[in-house]
Amino acid sequence: MRLARPLETLIDELMKLPSVGPKTAQRMALYILKASEADAKRLARAVIDAKEKIAPCSNCGYLTDTDPCLLCIDEKRDSSILCVAEEASDIIAIEKAGFNGRYFVINQAFKLMDDNELDRVTLEKFKTKLAAGGIREVILALNPDIDGEVVSRYLSRIAGQYNIKTTRLAHGLPVGGDIEYADEITLRRAIEGRHEF
Amino acid sequence: MRLARPLETLIDELMKLPSVGPKTAQRMALYILKASEADAKRLARAVIDAKEKIAPCSNCGYLTDTDPCLLCIDEKRDSSILCVAEEASDIIAIEKAGFNGRYFVINQAFKLMDDNELDRVTLEKFKTKLAAGGIREVILALNPDIDGEVVSRYLSRIAGQYNIKTTRLAHGLPVGGDIEYADEITLRRAIEGRHEF
Repeated sequence: MRLARPLETLIDELMKLPSVGPKTAQRMALYILKASEADAKRLARAVIDAKEKIAPCSNCGYLTDTDPCLLCIDEKRDSSILCVAEEASDIIAIEKAGFNGRYFVINQAFKLMDDNELDRVTLEKFKTKLAAGGIREVILALNPDIDGEVVSRYLSRIAGQYNIKTTRLAHGLPVGGDIEYADEITLRRAIEGRHEF
Repeated sequence: MRLARPLETLIDELMKLPSVGPKTAQRMALYILKASEADAKRLARAVIDAKEKIAPCSNCGYLTDTDPCLLCIDEKRDSSILCVAEEASDIIAIEKAGFNGRYFVINQAFKLMDDNELDRVTLEKFKTKLAAGGIREVILALNPDIDGEVVSRYLSRIAGQYNIKTTRLAHGLPVGGDIEYADEITLRRAIEGRHEF
């Protein structure tokens, strides 16, 4: 199919975005061509702006355009609980769930069989935080996969060196989920974690 | 939830794209923040470039960065068949299906109960094409909805004035479709349009 070159380029670039296949990318590209020039420029500007102005918070690692970030300067938060997460997107989800403590974002992709160690800078930052005192609990909110498991154990051991309790998120049935369709590991965890009615 | 302002703006802009909800937009925005600066710039540039360089072909209305478009200058196409479609995206689909005639893209959204007439310029262009001779068939490939129906009838009447045969795309079951789940109108059309085995 013969598409104009700039249209092809746009489709190719859009296809790099997550959950965008060729059909969606084409629909998006044609939408952009139909939109006003001002709208197209706003989208392009937003991409550049976000990329230029946003960086990880030097204190907690959350994505921010001010340093320290809004979460770090919020005085109303409980500084005695530190929630460790892999990515800023996890923080967004945890915030929506109503958590009101502090965060520590690792911002690093773990790959099993690869070098599984946290990079030195992140690790030092984590230790400095624990050493500073005031933290009574570290919640390890890493993804429930093998890599998350390995890193969780490692961080838990470090927190133990500072005599700080570590906890982790509960496993179980998703709310609204159907027992029939739950995988067996999740269901086993849900049974193990049962509590009084 | 507190998001950095440039991140919020980017999410808002991405949400304007078709089939992008808040969750997808957030995932895309975070992906862009993680990508290299060069990648982000390429995406932004592609949006601007496509918008600036692409316009409807002055001859057929297809989206192009050269005028006349690649389809219009292709000598190997059958100029005696003119396929009329609503949008460039329809042309892309029809091309993929292997059609090899000429096109006429209306590039206009019809709204029922609204002014349903084609704009004068498009209409004049259509008539000029028919008057020029050499066309023996006009295929009306407008969407199978009421608006498409109204415009199809109108265009068919015009083509009749030039003694040109008009045809339309067949209705019926989608290939791979399930009779059980076909809507009754489609199924009725499939029965009416049945042919010998």
